[in-house]
This record gives sequence, structure tokens and C-alpha cells, in this order.
Amino acid sequence: MSEEMKPESVLLCPLDTAAAPEPELLCIFGTGDFGRSLGQHLLQSGYRVVYGSRRPHSCGPLPQGAQVMSHATAAQSSSLVFICVHRENYGFLETLAPQLKGKVLVDVSNNLKKNLYSEANAEYLQRLIPEAHVVKGLNTLSAWTLQNGPSDANRQVYLCGNSAEAKQAVGKIAVQLGFTVLDRGSLSVAKELEDFPLQLFPEWRLPLRLAFGLTTCFFIYVVIRDVIYKYVDQGKDVSFRMMVSLPNKVFPTVSLIMLSLCYLPGIIAAIVQLYRGTKYKRFPNWLDRWMLCRKQIGLVALGFAFLHVIYTLIIPIRYYVRYKISASTISKFKENKTADLDTTIAWYTDSYYAMGILGFAGFVLLGITSLPSVSNALSWREFNFIQSKLGYITLFLCTFHVYLYGWDKFLFPSYYKWCTPSAYMLSLVVPSIVLVLKLLLLLPCVDRTLTRLRQGWERTDPQCPSKKPLLT
Amino acid sequence: MSEEMKPESVLLCPLDTAAAPEPELLCIFGTGDFGRSLGQHLLQSGYRVVYGSRRPHSCGPLPQGAQVMSHATAAQSSSLVFICVHRENYGFLETLAPQLKGKVLVDVSNNLKKNLYSEANAEYLQRLIPEAHVVKGLNTLSAWTLQNGPSDANRQVYLCGNSAEAKQAVGKIAVQLGFTVLDRGSLSVAKELEDFPLQLFPEWRLPLRLAFGLTTCFFIYVVIRDVIYKYVDQGKDVSFRMMVSLPNKVFPTVSLIMLSLCYLPGIIAAIVQLYRGTKYKRFPNWLDRWMLCRKQIGLVALGFAFLHVIYTLIIPIRYYVRYKISASTISKFKENKTADLDTTIAWYTDSYYAMGILGFAGFVLLGITSLPSVSNALSWREFNFIQSKLGYITLFLCTFHVYLYGWDKFLFPSYYKWCTPSAYMLSLVVPSIVLVLKLLLLLPCVDRTLTRLRQGWERTDPQCPSKKPLLT
Amino acid sequence: MSEEMKPESVLLCPLDTAAAPEPELLCIFGTGDFGRSLGQHLLQSGYRVVYGSRRPHSCGPLPQGAQVMSHATAAQSSSLVFICVHRENYGFLETLAPQLKGKVLVDVSNNLKKNLYSEANAEYLQRLIPEAHVVKGLNTLSAWTLQNGPSDANRQVYLCGNSAEAKQAVGKIAVQLGFTVLDRGSLSVAKELEDFPLQLFPEWRLPLRLAFGLTTCFFIYVVIRDVIYKYVDQGKDVSFRMMVSLPNKVFPTVSLIMLSLCYLPGIIAAIVQLYRGTKYKRFPNWLDRWMLCRKQIGLVALGFAFLHVIYTLIIPIRYYVRYKISASTISKFKENKTADLDTTIAWYTDSYYAMGILGFAGFVLLGITSLPSVSNALSWREFNFIQSKLGYITLFLCTFHVYLYGWDKFLFPSYYKWCTPSAYMLSLVVPSIVLVLKLLLLLPCVDRTLTRLRQGWERTDPQCPSKKPLLT
Repeated sequence: MSEEMKPESVLLCPLDTAAAPEPELLCIFGTGDFGRSLGQHLLQSGYRVVYGSRRPHSCGPLPQGAQVMSHATAAQSSSLVFICVHRENYGFLETLAPQLKGKVLVDVSNNLKKNLYSEANAEYLQRLIPEAHVVKGLNTLSAWTLQNGPSDANRQVYLCGNSAEAKQAVGKIAVQLGFTVLDRGSLSVAKELEDFPLQLFPEWRLPLRLAFGLTTCFFIYVVIRDVIYKYVDQGKDVSFRMMVSLPNKVFPTVSLIMLSLCYLPGIIAAIVQLYRGTKYKRFPNWLDRWMLCRKQIGLVALGFAFLHVIYTLIIPIRYYVRYKISASTISKFKENKTADLDTTIAWYTDSYYAMGILGFAGFVLLGITSLPSVSNALSWREFNFIQSKLGYITLFLCTFHVYLYGWDKFLFPSYYKWCTPSAYMLSLVVPSIVLVLKLLLLLPCVDRTLTRLRQGWERTDPQCPSKKPLLT
Repeated sequence: MSEEMKPESVLLCPLDTAAAPEPELLCIFGTGDFGRSLGQHLLQSGYRVVYGSRRPHSCGPLPQGAQVMSHATAAQSSSLVFICVHRENYGFLETLAPQLKGKVLVDVSNNLKKNLYSEANAEYLQRLIPEAHVVKGLNTLSAWTLQNGPSDANRQVYLCGNSAEAKQAVGKIAVQLGFTVLDRGSLSVAKELEDFPLQLFPEWRLPLRLAFGLTTCFFIYVVIRDVIYKYVDQGKDVSFRMMVSLPNKVFPTVSLIMLSLCYLPGIIAAIVQLYRGTKYKRFPNWLDRWMLCRKQIGLVALGFAFLHVIYTLIIPIRYYVRYKISASTISKFKENKTADLDTTIAWYTDSYYAMGILGFAGFVLLGITSLPSVSNALSWREFNFIQSKLGYITLFLCTFHVYLYGWDKFLFPSYYKWCTPSAYMLSLVVPSIVLVLKLLLLLPCVDRTLTRLRQGWERTDPQCPSKKPLLT
Repeated sequence: MSEEMKPESVLLCPLDTAAAPEPELLCIFGTGDFGRSLGQHLLQSGYRVVYGSRRPHSCGPLPQGAQVMSHATAAQSSSLVFICVHRENYGFLETLAPQLKGKVLVDVSNNLKKNLYSEANAEYLQRLIPEAHVVKGLNTLSAWTLQNGPSDANRQVYLCGNSAEAKQAVGKIAVQLGFTVLDRGSLSVAKELEDFPLQLFPEWRLPLRLAFGLTTCFFIYVVIRDVIYKYVDQGKDVSFRMMVSLPNKVFPTVSLIMLSLCYLPGIIAAIVQLYRGTKYKRFPNWLDRWMLCRKQIGLVALGFAFLHVIYTLIIPIRYYVRYKISASTISKFKENKTADLDTTIAWYTDSYYAMGILGFAGFVLLGITSLPSVSNALSWREFNFIQSKLGYITLFLCTFHVYLYGWDKFLFPSYYKWCTPSAYMLSLVVPSIVLVLKLLLLLPCVDRTLTRLRQGWERTDPQCPSKKPLLT
């Protein structure tokens, strides 16, 4: 870098003098929507723009100040060309290979569907014109953003390409337009960049479907047990309970089950490693897929826990609850009963509230550390400490909360309507299994073996790579 | 880049050997507060510092280890000079043009007010000394940060300048000081960088004024209707209701109105586009300005919704509410009334609580996706899905919540005190209009036309740019 | 950059043609766990990998597709070598100095403990082989991340080194592996990078210990005053109150005290500056340390405030509270008392709820602006406005909330059990001191002097740096 600081280097590169240079001329192929928005923004940012069009004399409205000419002429006047045409029309570019030799071609195309073509658009373009430098970029921006400038979710421009200088040239323009630039590597990642704008929360699909399935099943279950049973058994219509009371049984159930499903794959993976005696064999696909969406499962569980908390806090404002309390106070007075405070009930109810609140607080902390900016500020050791140790403490507190809520209800037959267990009893199955297995994995003998496995030890004899490499 | 990796390139550039080089010498013009803090931090980070001063022998305390000499001598000893003097004193630098030729000048100045000068300080400096490379940078940091190192809101250094090598040199120093560097482009954006430290939430002014105005108006309205009316009508003093009960009518009203004002500009814009038959005409300025602060309007609305939720949840703890419930229970017993549970009331009250909670949950989710790190992790399609679809669902749930809260109150004349409608009725006007218009825009015929317009189609005939370009 | 865009520069650099180049060959020294994971990921990303091992013929399983040979041969085949061996084994690398001359060596080592060695591993390596370019990097990633790709808390790669081209080469590879790269400067910061993975929330230790200490002390205090006193005085067992009622006295106390301890160091610093008449003398170490963890103290205080809010909101659901209310309603009816609503009580109770809610809302806003992505989006002036002005308003509202809660309780001897003040009275000491001192600092005469001091003025005579520099 020191060389470039010497005064002589300034004289040798007349294009890079200290005075503001003549605006750079950029070429855009394509006068469709994206091409026009891009051109307008480039003109506003101080560049000169020339369009290449098949019909230069009848091509539709273009931004004021831009010229339009044939493709070949336009390409010759600039060293950088934005290719704003659909992939289906790339064929004609092959005829322009001589004029495009050595130029930077920016491929901004998107497809309508994923996997429409086996090869990425940018790689196809590079194959058509091998002597140009193809850079994939700006395809993640919408035309609206180009017209109006960077905004939320539209500030980042991803580039990839085989030539570092070509990427730097495109990056410089993107920075001038007000975006931040991220280099993603060589042209082989172009397919990823082309898929990115088409995705719609791919890692959230499984957790959301799981949550929807659990919610539906449990809701039907509690409706049968609480509304239909009461109607059949006592002729009372308590269907209004479907708006608040029953959701307040379903939401915590789904939340607790999903929170434990967040930690179960880690335990299964540990058991698999212990069984196989090595950490280098790949996990089954379903386990891999499950491990990859643990964060989304946890965040969905947090959402349900949040709803449960607010549904619980409005209990004393509800008309139904006030009616019941009023009727109970009046009947207590009529019976002239002055029952003493039952401290056992006071103890276990206050305890399960306290457990629930502390568990929710831990849950919220887990959610906050999942925010991208917070998790990026933590080191791997810190992040693991929170998500693993605090995570299991949260799971324990929430499970204990439900056990205390149950207390001795399971002893009374009246809770088993039509011989079915309460929803909360069902919700305790998975978390209890997870916590018991985790305790077993924490036993010193097991934990020691697991730690050795994770540091690379293997139960079988190590062999030369020329014979049987165990890494797949 | 491969060239520079060859061993020979190491021998050719003796300044870039593998051994730790002799500390680089940097020059600072100006011995004021910023100059001293900057010099101290540079010395701590391993650079050598020489000051240029008008009175080298009587210039005030300087960091230990720094030398001080005349401007001309100091400039000659280093290839990079930090200009830490006020803009008013730039004149004398012109006399130093020969010594500053080819050097990098870092302009760190700030002005006291926006738009004090028509030209940015950095552009003025570049004009004075055309043969130097001026880089604007470090002006967004406070002297305290330079003394104490990077901290929150003070980690980012923005650079702009016409010479890429000059920016790289300054960036290298900033990185060594512990900051992250962001290149914002050429010197033409210097005015933006100089305005940045002077701003105080510019995009929040309109939303906050709007919120303040709505809050004041509605608060006076409910005080008149609930406190003054009661005093005039029944002689009772219920002024204590101004602390919790009345704010709990004003906050949800303001929140719902502002949430709908968040979506109204989008609808007006769509209607304007349908009317004009093109998307390429600029919107009126007031509509543009409104569209740009939609996010801030929504976040202020979320804040008011949050206050409404907590004001609602403390209802059963309030002395006034407990007094009322107790009195009501006692009077029910005295009248020996054993009214059955009214399931209609139970249904609609539980329903409006449920709608309110679900609407608030959606509102919180919208707020979380507005956080910079979360919105940057989403693609445009995902962000739009959340803010648009989930946004309208949230608006619908909150509006339905208020309709259910109203239920049949509007039928009873006692609610119209002095012939004025309740605050909640007024709050329903704007959201209802927005939802109805959105439904109309979703009709297949209208939606089809709008989608075509947004993809670039125009109702008029396309003409050559040489005749009448429709883009302004 | 313009030079590199000319077509001729493409012909001159045959290694940088537009066609996808032959995969780059990288060398890895060390066949342990990290070396194997790194090699596997490099092969998956399209590189060719050759291992250098002491025992090439019996070295354990390696990724398929990687070759293994002696160190010397492996080093000669590539221009970049990853050193994946422990520091204790760096000695043998000295014998390879001729083969490693001019190569880039990537030091990925970590130590088991901080400060195990006085010199950073990377600096030691550079000292051993002065003619190679050592780059410290990738040591903050875990082997699991290398196996499975970037994920939360493991997306960022930090580099440092003396040679910019070496860092660029390593950065290019890291980008290809899917990470983002951050240049931290020269090799002198290698010790920081080596310490980073070993840290476990270093800045949170003091605030958490402080919170734990305060919580324990106050909990014991309220248990003695509320549970033990009641048992001794009236023989009643109210120990169940330890689960919810007593924590709900301790949490707000700790929260308020810690919030004021967040603002006290700033006030002490201002007083120190006023006393000394200069801002250039260093603060005492304890004050510096306190000032540096203000944000963490504030966030811990916010956590306690959040717990207090939820513990308060569940009050009306608690069995104990419902029992008390029911008993009180019944006894009111039996005594045939129809007390009127006491508007004074209504006023002050509603007021302290309102103050508490508004204070909590301000507290939450302070917490949100502490998120890394939000604080990075603010300018220094905006951040300071929120944290300082809004911060003191929040402290005032919360203190006023507690004063109103106390109201006239302090006049009644029954509140002084065993002549001790209530916990809430103790909680008011520090905040009141802080607010009073802040008011004094806002007096025009004091404020004027403080502003002048902060802009660099000093009370003593300025002297030449050759005599007595006041900067330390």
C-alpha cells in the first residue's frame, strides 16, 4: 500500500487525480422495469448512463439524461455493463462476445421459481462469454428500492464473482448508491444468491407446521374434555371458555413441548455419538434437519409462552372469573364458613407462580441472545453457556412449574374425564424424558466419555487414510 | 492478488516486510481538544505523532511523546495529516499547498449547525488544495471516544473521498484504533457525513408530534366527558381517574389511529397510481414524507399499545376497582340476587380480550422485525410479507377488538354525554376506512391492474425518450 | 483501480482470467481435530488440501480427497499454510524456515487459559519465522462450526497481521467458507484475539456479583422483618410469603439501587473534574472500572424491574390475595360498614401505579437502545440524549413511584418492626442522593463551568509541553 501513497503514483494514474473525476459512464442492457429504475438511481448518484436496446428508436420511456443506442455501440463505450434482461434472452449476448471481452458484466437477474434451471444464471452467462468478468449482484434488491434508495431489508448488496477487481468495481458503484457491500466469494455461490430473494422463511416451515399441528390437536382435545364433556355430563354450556380459558391450556402445553423438542435433538445426537464411539460419522438426515431448526423451534415456543403469560394476567379482569369469585364469596358468607388460610395451598400456588415467572424470564433472555446483533457480539463460549446451561435451567423451571400446578390433582378421579388425562399431564411427558436423559448424560462416567469423543477421540483403532478413512 | 503473493513481491517492497515495521509517523494540525485526544489515542496504538502548530513554543499541554513544530515542517515529515482545526481557519492551509501536495488530508471537522455553509467543509478543503487527497472521516466520533476507545454508538467510522488509496490508508489507521470502517463513496457525500452528528432523530419528529397532538386532544376530550361531566351531572369528584382510567382510554385510541396511519399512505399511493395509470410519476411531497416515516409511526403506536396493555393489567390491583367490586358484591348479596352467568357477556368480553392479546402479539412481532439486525437478515420478500400481511392482520385484530369492546354500547343514550360519542367510537373511524379501502384494493379486478402497474405497465402509449419521457 | 480494469491487465495476469481457475491448493500442518474439520470444510468449498504430518503413513483418518506428506514437502506445494498444532510444538517449525519463507502462515491456535504465556502465540510464531507472513485468524471458531458451517455467534472471523496482502488472502478463503471477515489491525492485537474465546462475560461479573449481594442482603432483611417478626410477635406462620410477596419487595429495591448506581459514577466523575479543574487527569481506577460497566449494571437493573412488574401483575390471581380480599369483603359486610371511596387513597395509589408504569416504559426503551444494532444506528448525540436525559427521567419516575408508594407509611410506628425501616425506605437513599446531586450539577453556574471543562478549558495556566505536560 505504501507504493500507492507515493506522489509519483498519482502522476502515473491520471484517471485517479485528486480533483473530482468526470462522471463514470455505465452501460445498461435492457429497458424493462429494473433497468429503468437502476438507470434513474445511477443518474441521480452522479454517473452517466447509456442504454443498449434492441429497438433504440422505440423502446419506451427512459430516465432523463440517459442515452440509448444499439447493444454493440453501447457496450463499447463503457467498461461495465449491467445485464438487465431475462435469462431466456441471454442467447443474443453471445453475438456480442467481441465487444464484451474484458468488460465487467453485472448479472442482476432473478428467476420466478427456485431450481427452474440446473445452472445459475450468472454461471450460464459466464459460460456464454468466457472472456468477460461476470459478477452476480444487486439481484436481492427490489426495483422500488432502486427508485427510492436503501431502506430496511434492502441495504445490503451481495456480490460474487471470480475476479476480485471486477467485484471491487461493482462494489464501488453500490457504495456510491448508498448500499453496504458483502463479498460472498466466487461465482459458484451464484445459485445461493439467486435463491435468496425467492425464499420465504425456509427454516421456519417445520417449526411452524409442528406448532400448528400441536395447537390443533390439543385444542380439539381440551374442547372435548372441557366443553363437550360438561355439556354431556351436566347440561351446562361453557362454550365461551373457548376464547380464553381453553387457549390458556393449549398455549403453555405447546410451548413446553416445543421447548423440550429444542433440546431433545442434542441429547439424541450425544447418545448416537456414544453408541457409535466416534463423532466423525454423519448424523441421519432427519436429525441434522432437526438440529438446524432448533433456534426457530425455541423462538416459536417463546411466542406461545408470551401468549400464555398475557392470557394468565387478564384472568382477574374477565367477567366470568369475577362472576365466579363473587358467587364464591357470597356462598362462603351464606354458609358462615370462616376457613383459615390453608398455608399448604398458599405455598404451592405461590411456588408455581414463582417458577413460572422465573422460567419465563429465562426464556426471554434466551430469546434476546438469539437476536443477530446480540449473538454476534458473544464469543462461542459465552453463546454456548447461555443457550445450553441457561436453556436447561429454563426447561427445568418450566417443567417444575407444571408439576407444581398439578400438585395432587392427579390423585382425584374427577380430573380424568372419560378416563383421559388432563392436557397438562400430557405436556409433561416429553420435557420429563429430556430432563432425565440430560441428567443421565451428566453422570461423570458418561460425561467423561462424551467429552473425549468431542475432542476427537474414537473408540475404534485409527487407520491410515489409504485404507479406510472414517470421515465421509 | 496472486501477483502480490509471489515471494519476489516481498523483496520489491521493503516497506512491507514480515517484521513489525517502524511505527508510522502521523501529523496532526491543531492542538485543540480533538487534536489532543486523537494524538493521545494514536500514540497509545503505536504510532508516532508530530503536531503542527502556529505557536510551537506556547501551545498548551500535549500528549507525552508527541513532538510539535511549525505547520510546514510537520507536514513534510508525514504522508498523512489530520486537519483538526475549525473550518474558519482553513484559509492558512492554502499557503501550505506545496508541502501538502500528494498527501492524504483527513478532515475531521464538524459544524455547530446544519447548513451553516453551502459547501461541505471537506469539499472546501479539497478546493483549496486540489493536489492533496482529502478524506472526510472520524468526524462522527466524540473526543471522549477517542480518549477512551470505541464504545456503543461510537464504533463506526464513516469515510468518504475521491481517492481509494487515501481512504484505504485512513481506514487502516481507524482499524488499528479499534473502529470498524465503512466507505460511503466519493467526496460528494461529505455534506451528509457532516450533518450526521448534528441530527437528533430527524425521522421521529413528525410521528412524535403527531402522537403528542393526538394524546393531548383525546385526553382533554375524555377529561371533559368523564370527569367534568360527572361533576356537573352528579356532583361527584372522580378526578383521580385522570391518573390511570383516562390514560387507559387515550393510549389505545392514539395507538390504533397511528397504526392505521401507518398503512393509509400505502393505500393512498396505490389509489394515486391507479388514477394516474403509471407508477413512474413522483408522488406529492407530503405523501413521500409520510411514506418515509411509516416505520417510526408504527413504533410509536407500539409504544402506546404497550402502555395500554400494562395499564389494563393493573386494573384489578387498583384500590378504586377493588372498592367497586367489593361494593358490587355486597349489594348483590343484599338484594339477594343470584343472577346466572350471562354467557353472551362472557362470550363477547372473552372474545375482545383474545382479539386484543393476539393483536398485541402481532404488533410486538412487527416491532421485533423492525430492529436493524433482524430486518437485515430477512430477504425483501420475507420483510414485505411480515410488514404487509401480518401488519394488516394486526390492524384488523385491533380494530375488531375495539368493535367487540363497544358491542352494543352505542345503542344506549347514556354513553353519549352531552351528545358526544365515546373516545373509542372516534378511534374506529380511521382504521375502518383503511380496512375497507384495503378490501376494495384486494378485489381481483383492481388487484390485477395494480400488479401490472407495479411491474412497469402504463396505461398511456409508450413514446420515445426523445419526445416525452414520462420519468421525471 | 482503473488500471486493473484495462483489458491489458487481464492479459498480464494469467492467473486471474475470467474462467474459473483450478482449485487453489492449501496446506494444513496438523492432523488433530481442528485440522481435520478445517480440511473437510475446505474440500467441500472447492479447495485442494494437502496435510503436513510428522508421521505421514500413520496419522489417523483424514478427509477424503486430501493428501498427506511430510511437512517440508507439503509446505513447498502451497503458498498458504494453516498451522493447526499446539503452541508447545511450534519449535519444529523453525527448522522449516527456508520452505516457509514468504508464505502466509495462519495461526489458529488457542490456549487453555488466559495469560499462560506473556507473548501471543502468533507473535511467537512470527518471531520464530521472521520471513513468513503470520496472520492470526479463525481461532474464534469452534471445530463444530468448521464441520457444519457458519451459525449464530460463529459467523465472524477476526484477522490480524502485519501484511495487508496476507490478510486479504486469508480473508478471501474465509469468505469462500461463508464467514464475514473483520480486520482488527496488526499482529500486536493477536493477544486480544487469543483471549476472546476464553472470556465468559467479563464485563458482567461485577454487576452480577453486585446484584447477587444486594439481593441476598435485602432478602434476609425482609425475611427477618416480615416472616420471623410475625412469628415472634403474633405466632403466625406466613413463611409462604417468601415465594412471591418478599421477592416482590427485594426485586424493586435492588433494581432501583442498581439503576441509580448506573448514574452515580457520571456524577462523581463530574464532581472530580470540577474539583481538579481539568478533564485531562485520569480518573481513579475504581471509578474507571465502574464507568465501564454502567451498561451492564443498567441491564441487570432492567431484568429485576421486569421480574418486579410480573410479580406485581399476578397479585390478584394469588390464592393468598383472593383469600384476604374475600375475608375483607365479608367482614365489611358483617360490620355493615359502607365506607365511601377515599379519593385521597385513590389519587395516590393510581399515581404511583402510573409513575411505575411510565418509569418501566422508559427503562424498556433504554434497554432497547442498548441493543448493539440499535445503538450502532444512532449518532453519538442521539445515543447520549436517550441514555442521559431519558435515563434521568426514568430514574426520577421510579424514585417518585417509591415515594408515592410510601406516602405516609413512614409516620406510623407499626411499620418500624424492631425499630428497623422498611426495605422501600432503604431503597430510596441512593437514588435520592443521585437526583439531588444531579440537580445541583444542573445549576447554571455549575453547569457552565462543567461545559467549559469538557470542551478543553483548564483552571490552571497552560504551559509548554517541554515543561509540565498535564496529560498523563
